[in-house]
Amino acid sequence: MNTFGRIFRLTSFGESHGAGIGGIIDGCPAGVEVDMNFIASELERRKPGQSKITTGRVEPDRVEFLSGVFEGKTLGTPIAFIVWNKDQQSQDYDELKNVFRPSHADYTWQQKYGIRDHRGGGRSSARETIARVAAGALAKIILRKPGVHIQAFVSQVGDVCLEKPYGELDLSCTENNIIRCPDPAIASRMIEKVEEAARNHDTVGGVITGVVTGVPAGWGEPVFNKLHADLGFAMLGINAVKGFEYGSGFAGTRLYGSEHNDVFIKTKTGIHTRTNHSGGIQGGISNGEDIYFRVAFKPVATLLKQQETVNSEIQPVTIHPKGRHDPCVLPRAVPIVEAMAALVLVDHYLLQKLNN
Amino acid sequence: MNTFGRIFRLTSFGESHGAGIGGIIDGCPAGVEVDMNFIASELERRKPGQSKITTGRVEPDRVEFLSGVFEGKTLGTPIAFIVWNKDQQSQDYDELKNVFRPSHADYTWQQKYGIRDHRGGGRSSARETIARVAAGALAKIILRKPGVHIQAFVSQVGDVCLEKPYGELDLSCTENNIIRCPDPAIASRMIEKVEEAARNHDTVGGVITGVVTGVPAGWGEPVFNKLHADLGFAMLGINAVKGFEYGSGFAGTRLYGSEHNDVFIKTKTGIHTRTNHSGGIQGGISNGEDIYFRVAFKPVATLLKQQETVNSEIQPVTIHPKGRHDPCVLPRAVPIVEAMAALVLVDHYLLQKLNN
Amino acid sequence: MNTFGRIFRLTSFGESHGAGIGGIIDGCPAGVEVDMNFIASELERRKPGQSKITTGRVEPDRVEFLSGVFEGKTLGTPIAFIVWNKDQQSQDYDELKNVFRPSHADYTWQQKYGIRDHRGGGRSSARETIARVAAGALAKIILRKPGVHIQAFVSQVGDVCLEKPYGELDLSCTENNIIRCPDPAIASRMIEKVEEAARNHDTVGGVITGVVTGVPAGWGEPVFNKLHADLGFAMLGINAVKGFEYGSGFAGTRLYGSEHNDVFIKTKTGIHTRTNHSGGIQGGISNGEDIYFRVAFKPVATLLKQQETVNSEIQPVTIHPKGRHDPCVLPRAVPIVEAMAALVLVDHYLLQKLNN
Amino acid sequence: MNTFGRIFRLTSFGESHGAGIGGIIDGCPAGVEVDMNFIASELERRKPGQSKITTGRVEPDRVEFLSGVFEGKTLGTPIAFIVWNKDQQSQDYDELKNVFRPSHADYTWQQKYGIRDHRGGGRSSARETIARVAAGALAKIILRKPGVHIQAFVSQVGDVCLEKPYGELDLSCTENNIIRCPDPAIASRMIEKVEEAARNHDTVGGVITGVVTGVPAGWGEPVFNKLHADLGFAMLGINAVKGFEYGSGFAGTRLYGSEHNDVFIKTKTGIHTRTNHSGGIQGGISNGEDIYFRVAFKPVATLLKQQETVNSEIQPVTIHPKGRHDPCVLPRAVPIVEAMAALVLVDHYLLQKLNN
Repeated sequence: MNTFGRIFRLTSFGESHGAGIGGIIDGCPAGVEVDMNFIASELERRKPGQSKITTGRVEPDRVEFLSGVFEGKTLGTPIAFIVWNKDQQSQDYDELKNVFRPSHADYTWQQKYGIRDHRGGGRSSARETIARVAAGALAKIILRKPGVHIQAFVSQVGDVCLEKPYGELDLSCTENNIIRCPDPAIASRMIEKVEEAARNHDTVGGVITGVVTGVPAGWGEPVFNKLHADLGFAMLGINAVKGFEYGSGFAGTRLYGSEHNDVFIKTKTGIHTRTNHSGGIQGGISNGEDIYFRVAFKPVATLLKQQETVNSEIQPVTIHPKGRHDPCVLPRAVPIVEAMAALVLVDHYLLQKLNN
Repeated sequence: MNTFGRIFRLTSFGESHGAGIGGIIDGCPAGVEVDMNFIASELERRKPGQSKITTGRVEPDRVEFLSGVFEGKTLGTPIAFIVWNKDQQSQDYDELKNVFRPSHADYTWQQKYGIRDHRGGGRSSARETIARVAAGALAKIILRKPGVHIQAFVSQVGDVCLEKPYGELDLSCTENNIIRCPDPAIASRMIEKVEEAARNHDTVGGVITGVVTGVPAGWGEPVFNKLHADLGFAMLGINAVKGFEYGSGFAGTRLYGSEHNDVFIKTKTGIHTRTNHSGGIQGGISNGEDIYFRVAFKPVATLLKQQETVNSEIQPVTIHPKGRHDPCVLPRAVPIVEAMAALVLVDHYLLQKLNN
Repeated sequence: MNTFGRIFRLTSFGESHGAGIGGIIDGCPAGVEVDMNFIASELERRKPGQSKITTGRVEPDRVEFLSGVFEGKTLGTPIAFIVWNKDQQSQDYDELKNVFRPSHADYTWQQKYGIRDHRGGGRSSARETIARVAAGALAKIILRKPGVHIQAFVSQVGDVCLEKPYGELDLSCTENNIIRCPDPAIASRMIEKVEEAARNHDTVGGVITGVVTGVPAGWGEPVFNKLHADLGFAMLGINAVKGFEYGSGFAGTRLYGSEHNDVFIKTKTGIHTRTNHSGGIQGGISNGEDIYFRVAFKPVATLLKQQETVNSEIQPVTIHPKGRHDPCVLPRAVPIVEAMAALVLVDHYLLQKLNN
Repeated sequence: MNTFGRIFRLTSFGESHGAGIGGIIDGCPAGVEVDMNFIASELERRKPGQSKITTGRVEPDRVEFLSGVFEGKTLGTPIAFIVWNKDQQSQDYDELKNVFRPSHADYTWQQKYGIRDHRGGGRSSARETIARVAAGALAKIILRKPGVHIQAFVSQVGDVCLEKPYGELDLSCTENNIIRCPDPAIASRMIEKVEEAARNHDTVGGVITGVVTGVPAGWGEPVFNKLHADLGFAMLGINAVKGFEYGSGFAGTRLYGSEHNDVFIKTKTGIHTRTNHSGGIQGGISNGEDIYFRVAFKPVATLLKQQETVNSEIQPVTIHPKGRHDPCVLPRAVPIVEAMAALVLVDHYLLQKLNN
């Protein structure tokens, strides 16, 4: 259950305070030129300590490829990779060994497995997403060939919202600020929101919007594995995600059918739709329009303030976590959302080859 | 790609105007008493023509079991079943043979496969969900043993919302009205909304809420197959679904961590949480609290009014669909949402046996 | 566990005395013309009662397609099919309800599931192979495009062996006699062998050889799913099979490397090997030469003579089976061997599209 | 396609001259005590340079666990492991870069992928089996609980055969000699056979017999995944394997049904069979008797003598391999056969939990 994908398959491994985090990518086509600098740059976007509003942990997060790449190209064989763990301060967690932190996975893991690695959350740590970003970077490289481009950005932090539709934004500005919001004015307010929360030893949640361009009509599957079902599954598998919607989403439920339907029109480039409430997907299959979706992230569960809870003896205890934690996961989650979208899309890209 | 589940696996088949709709359930434990009346009653809840606000098509939708059941009990072998198609009026669709209806799957299927069964939407028809409801009914029967109960209801139609949290409602009243909303006053307003849309030859969307009680702590998987990721995948695979959220969902993104965290407390029955923003799932694994989620449905795409579109020669055409269609899928989608939840939960119930 | 294949997937169902035997083929490419006469003719080759040396049961075994085919072509959607059961004489089995027949699956099924359909062996009946032959026939149709041809024949019955290598035989004569051996003289001796066994109320086993021509170099997978491992898995999954070898097989273990190696040579049509001990597969991947293999079948377990055994109360009993049974499964197993080979090859044909 | 197993899943990686060979084991139950010494001792049995009749390469082959084990116990999370490559003499292979060695995988890999790592055979190297032996060792540890014991031994080298059935041998003597044959006299003759071949710069093949005791009745699956089909698939996936048979195997095809049937008898320990031609498996499911099988290995393809072949320009060339190679893989393959059997059995052990 640690494998993602059907054709391009990532099997990931690793605990936060174990030897490292990594994975095996199986099903990658042979002959792909592996752009190591690009993969490194994607991991840079995810890594902690990248700005004043992210955790102060310093992790170099350099990825090492162990197989499947020869003279710069993929061999068609499994591509194993690892990012070694460093800078762990496992002793920070000693006092939490028998404590179930609120809204964390401590209690549920203990109930499921009867054993857990309590250090840094073990495998429930967000550090696990390194494997996703590395594999997603390779997926993005493969998706260059069909011309698919994936861009995510922060569209809400707490109650600070970017109301403009993505089409009215210059998404190329997303990386210009530390919160990863393409509107500089809203970005400033978002950063203030995070800083305010951090000052109060509190945390905030928000929303990330993803936009995918260049997907031709015909990718996806019509029944269980609808393209948006696979995207939703991918996003809901990211830590702290509470919701997913695509196209018109929850807001679209309030429209009448006559308002919501996307009328087909003939253009110079073929068939298109006048509006795009469908979010580029109809009947689970891409229709050639932009695919866009929104992902809800809850506020980080680790607060640097005192909280009540219980321990493994079911006795009430008070905890007061220390350590270095993000007051808001949103900016670092942007490359993770993109990576998961890339994994879904590369899978459907390859699957569609079976129909040709 | 027409198989759902890992241990308890439904593989479904069937086109709207083909011989029938059915499936094979593989991985069902042996020795389960098959309550045929219950399965029939679940299909009754889904079937068309059940009330004045659903389509007027009359389909008996009687399920026939072809294998895997012997003297009333499951054998551990594949359980094949079929509901034969009747009352199809295929000629209603002749004029749509080369037309791409707006916000339908006609265009995308043609692009994907180069061929499609245009009659009644072929396999993209909502009729395909018969297989899900039949298999979900069997899943519900198996889930009686661990005491799991699944109840869904309509919580929004167009702009008519049921604002009360589910805990303040008597969910046992859900089936008392034709819209399947447990609050009778809101139900009346919802029914009016649907009737108004129907009078205008228009359609409405809405939201279904699902509530699952009785799941013990420890079901789910921590990384990609988080329990809520599997639930979201299941729901997003239902026709017309545009979004999924669980627990605090999108609204929870506006809370601070100190507001959102669910504090663990000791009670007479063991460890519980004071609030349940987590929606009964933490780190992808059930924590013993109620699981609840919301599913967004777009308005039905088939309007009984004139619409512009293009045909397969990329020429503009005007269509004016006839036939018998639902102005709102919500009431009939309630048993489908429950069925998909049951399929997810029975799978995790069986998977958790591997840890014991 | 009733699904075969990864891309072209057959999920089968059915008990010997249930409603019927059938399956769902998922992953079949769209647009394939379904040659119904060919599929029927393949089922004819498998069906009982076809000659004096097969069981006298008369089963028409007409296949009915329930989905996935429209106007004679595949839609890309699941193809469900069924052969209805008829002519069952379930009462023949009443006295065997609580008896474990020697070398049958009665005892092991009871131990595994705690329940079984005792009538005609239930799902352990050879009748289950109908689904394989129907799906294999469709696979053969798809394999016409890349020019792959599969031919099996009986090469041993009891101690009567066809010693000539397949290259010295005219395989097109295989269907000319009821034992399906391309050498008429050996065929006569084999038929005598079966008749002698039948006269003694006994049964005989034997070997089927399979030959596949036209597979280009590059099909297969190099590690676990070697092309011959998938073939072996497919054959060993047929009832009564006890062994599988390909190329030089067990005999090749006695050769020195210098005798066994297949030297590459340049010919007008490219690279070939001078000998073919490799059986057309090197490192798990086809090399363009003929693929050939041998499959061992044990003698049928049902004897029409008295035998000792025990019942479900672990008491010794004596049984004396009646009914209509094959004294030798070999001739009817020829199309089954071909069908399973076709299912393996169509899967690797489609998989190899991912590398192009 | 580099994953083996359904519940207990090994995904392996690595090229002979890459960074290392390793894998991820997913689906291992939590709380298993990991006996590191045992795992190391199994790798010792596989490693090169262990005796005068194996290759002179010296590879320490120490396994390093990267995740999934905490304080000596499994966590239920993925267990990643690696054996780093050392002592590679990649330059030995420079002259083979564009040459297709006879009966090797060079040509077929090139045809499949259009690229290959030619150094030491790349991923087609027998060194890949390290991952199998490491994972198999963990599987053996888990199988101690249900009391399953797996023992393989060399039963044929070239034309030197161990004719005695395994029941008349003392299998505990297997590790007493370097060929791993439990009969010391036959072992000496086998060793002579290998030495003679080596003196002639030639190689020999042979047969390994596997015996599994302690499997209770009820493991396996009745249709495609018969227990012996899974075992055969596992064995045929080992490099150089050409055939598999279980129980009476190919020899059993010459018996009459009345000779071959295993009569059930009542004993003090319950139901048993008087003979065991079934090899402990009936209808694909274990019956509680010993499981035994035979695996055919071809002679090693790498000869230290001159051979004709062609290169990638389809020109005839003559090669004369140097380097350190085994004249016979049999003794080192014994732990590999056991490991693959253990992987199959642990999977069915876990699968059978779903029926309880």
